[in-house]
Amino acid sequence: MNFLKFFLIFIPISIVAEFIKLKPIWIFIISSFSIIPLAGFMGEATEEISVYSGPRIGGFLNATFGNATELIISFFALKAGLFDVVKASIAGSVIGNILLVLGASMLFGGLKYKVQKFNKKIVEVSSSMLLFAVIGLCIPAIFTHTANKELITSKYEWLSISVALAMFIIYLLGLYFSFHTHKDLYGSEHVENEKAKWSLKKSILVLVLCTLVIALESEFLVGSVEPMTETLKLSEFFVGIIIIPIIGNAAEHSTAIVMAMKNKMDVAIEIAIGSSLQIILFVAPILVFLSLLFKPMSIIFNEFELVALVVSILIVNRVASDGESNWLEGIQLIAVYIIIALSFII
Amino acid sequence: MNFLKFFLIFIPISIVAEFIKLKPIWIFIISSFSIIPLAGFMGEATEEISVYSGPRIGGFLNATFGNATELIISFFALKAGLFDVVKASIAGSVIGNILLVLGASMLFGGLKYKVQKFNKKIVEVSSSMLLFAVIGLCIPAIFTHTANKELITSKYEWLSISVALAMFIIYLLGLYFSFHTHKDLYGSEHVENEKAKWSLKKSILVLVLCTLVIALESEFLVGSVEPMTETLKLSEFFVGIIIIPIIGNAAEHSTAIVMAMKNKMDVAIEIAIGSSLQIILFVAPILVFLSLLFKPMSIIFNEFELVALVVSILIVNRVASDGESNWLEGIQLIAVYIIIALSFII
Amino acid sequence: MNFLKFFLIFIPISIVAEFIKLKPIWIFIISSFSIIPLAGFMGEATEEISVYSGPRIGGFLNATFGNATELIISFFALKAGLFDVVKASIAGSVIGNILLVLGASMLFGGLKYKVQKFNKKIVEVSSSMLLFAVIGLCIPAIFTHTANKELITSKYEWLSISVALAMFIIYLLGLYFSFHTHKDLYGSEHVENEKAKWSLKKSILVLVLCTLVIALESEFLVGSVEPMTETLKLSEFFVGIIIIPIIGNAAEHSTAIVMAMKNKMDVAIEIAIGSSLQIILFVAPILVFLSLLFKPMSIIFNEFELVALVVSILIVNRVASDGESNWLEGIQLIAVYIIIALSFII
Repeated sequence: MNFLKFFLIFIPISIVAEFIKLKPIWIFIISSFSIIPLAGFMGEATEEISVYSGPRIGGFLNATFGNATELIISFFALKAGLFDVVKASIAGSVIGNILLVLGASMLFGGLKYKVQKFNKKIVEVSSSMLLFAVIGLCIPAIFTHTANKELITSKYEWLSISVALAMFIIYLLGLYFSFHTHKDLYGSEHVENEKAKWSLKKSILVLVLCTLVIALESEFLVGSVEPMTETLKLSEFFVGIIIIPIIGNAAEHSTAIVMAMKNKMDVAIEIAIGSSLQIILFVAPILVFLSLLFKPMSIIFNEFELVALVVSILIVNRVASDGESNWLEGIQLIAVYIIIALSFII
Repeated sequence: MNFLKFFLIFIPISIVAEFIKLKPIWIFIISSFSIIPLAGFMGEATEEISVYSGPRIGGFLNATFGNATELIISFFALKAGLFDVVKASIAGSVIGNILLVLGASMLFGGLKYKVQKFNKKIVEVSSSMLLFAVIGLCIPAIFTHTANKELITSKYEWLSISVALAMFIIYLLGLYFSFHTHKDLYGSEHVENEKAKWSLKKSILVLVLCTLVIALESEFLVGSVEPMTETLKLSEFFVGIIIIPIIGNAAEHSTAIVMAMKNKMDVAIEIAIGSSLQIILFVAPILVFLSLLFKPMSIIFNEFELVALVVSILIVNRVASDGESNWLEGIQLIAVYIIIALSFII
Repeated sequence: MNFLKFFLIFIPISIVAEFIKLKPIWIFIISSFSIIPLAGFMGEATEEISVYSGPRIGGFLNATFGNATELIISFFALKAGLFDVVKASIAGSVIGNILLVLGASMLFGGLKYKVQKFNKKIVEVSSSMLLFAVIGLCIPAIFTHTANKELITSKYEWLSISVALAMFIIYLLGLYFSFHTHKDLYGSEHVENEKAKWSLKKSILVLVLCTLVIALESEFLVGSVEPMTETLKLSEFFVGIIIIPIIGNAAEHSTAIVMAMKNKMDVAIEIAIGSSLQIILFVAPILVFLSLLFKPMSIIFNEFELVALVVSILIVNRVASDGESNWLEGIQLIAVYIIIALSFII
């Protein structure tokens, strides 16, 4: 996190850049760079507040604010009508977490420790949940693509809202499950009775400030996507599925890798799977609901996104039933990610 | 089972309804309700006969008569030429068993017991068998849908009969496996040396009577499907994949849930997976063979059925390799089932 | 291996057959029969050389020459421009190894031993690797088939070469992993300090001779494919996916079955999975690189091959997480293979 601090310099630069109407590609890069440290501080502030609020509310705050950056970026993309970018970034966050974050954690952890073991039981609970969540999310899309496409759009909307509602209910039940009925299954090792580094007041201030600045930068970022992709002949889809998820998740990614290098593979895997779960069960439904304010967004993924999501299920399923990791597995996950990214580019 | 007894009243009602030509929707509902207790009595009668015949023949009888209700309903649908309904009800029975029955068992069991454990070994044997069976059953369909559709129909028939034959041979070998070469793997806990409640004569009489009445009611039911779907603008496909399997399996469903609430998750899971296996390896081939009497039915599932079947494989695979269940997993399975059903409706 | 010696008689017969221009079907059969013992001797010679070279170089030699026969046959098919046959034989080798070899091993082993256990840990490492490899190999094809097919051919080439390169790098890293950083995970039981039966000189001579004669026979074989398939109205695709893999892998197949019958299921499974891995990570990339000498071959599989590959993944995944096998599982794997083969014929 420490060296990321220096990226804060990109905040004023981005404002100047927007003001003097720099080329969209530069605005995109600069605002991306400025979001990365903000997402990091936001995470830290949430952690600090958790110390004051106690583990139960703290866990809820963490679960809710953990993907705030993606949510804010996606909200502005939604407002700008970039539905394809929004859906691509949902799918991209999941595959990025499963293939890139998990792969990098296994690689860097595996370079230090020959074989890294993790608690199969905990990983199995969340990987089962991820399996069900991805399947639920994908079913409308799979049926749409295989069906004769004579269905009426209004029916899609209705189906999307139902699925979003189902996902959101499971999200709430999942919180009840982890923080109430089965709380002993989790978090036993997180109790480490931390001391707060920041005062509660400072933490809340940082949280609010970061949210505001991320919102501003997200507006710059999203505004530059269309002109940039036109000039560079990149697809908006590629920006959505590869680049935005990397920006939005950078802070968590670095945490997962650091944990893996401390031989805490459980924590690294939980970050990757847990973050994917939040995207599907919390961020995606919220975006569907928010879209009703503008123009309803359906939850129908395209075939590329489906394939990428199903692949990530199969892999996390395999990883979970193993209980061990090594550097070669890490490289293979990263290789699958690179091959997917290459396929998106052409 | 006890309160289901009162449903027997629907048998005379259904005959009157048929006679006075009630609206098809009412005939459908009344005959459905009358089948539910009959299926239950049939199961009980089979169990009673097993007590007299000893475990080996008893197991065979159970395996053969377990899905007799579905077989009878499907036979009349076959005779009426409703091939889509027949195939949909085969797929629907499998996904109903895996998602709805297993889901409800995990949910209701999980509400009483925090974590329910089950014997991974036994579940793995049957879930492997289910995996192979579903894959074998789906391959002709997958190849048909991906192929350029210039294949001749006669070739489909030939392929369907071959697959049905392969499935049926594996069914017989599976019986030989569980009741002869590897019988100690199974049933060790079923030996509980039960006493018969009914005389052998009574049991056989009940079995024969139930079969006859179910046949009658199935004819009413199937006869009402076409006019009903036309009036309600429901697809026959929806009736086949969702409603008929629920009617045909109601008795087993309630047994599975009761077992789960007694913390016998092994038995609940075995009912769900075992019933699916019987549908694929016994009911489906028999229906293909019987269809030769009328007009050959191919075993080519449509894309929706394929997706639903593959999803249920993935999930049962995950569940089996876990060894534990809780209420949240149950809700998730049911949510996937509801999303599938919603997708079928639109 | 012993009775296979007599097949050497087919070498002179094939030369005569080619000279007197026998019907293509006969040339195909005779040259196939002559390749089977040669592949066996080649394997034996490699083993002998390994004894002299020590386990590290020996393992590398085994890994490299293990699929030399397929590589040579495919090279001549490549030279003859039979790209569909080459790609089909890559997919066919994988499904043949997973379904037929593993199935036959489990069946024949299971007939002698009631339940055969194997080391889950070792199998999981290679089955994970196979999962990632198949997914990586299939992604370009899946994306191509689901995409609107407006992509330019030159881009396919570029993607194929990238994927081939990624596979080959993982192959090299995999060798480094198994023979250097994690060598204790493997091979501990292979150390059995064998004595060489042949002198080093003889071994090298046999290796070189076999390679030359296989090359000659492969040229006969490949030359007969096109006229033969035309006469018999078989598809080249069927020859590629079913027949050539059986010829190329015959020697390994018999070894795997022999090992299973000695209750060494670990070794049998390792042969099946390891051979599949070599095909994907070594043979396929080499063939893509070699194709640049003639006309670039893309790595885009057709839908049939994709389905077959994905099915084999699912099955090996299931098998690996089980740790046990029996004759019924063996029969089921073989049944799935037969159903796939039947689907290819129609």
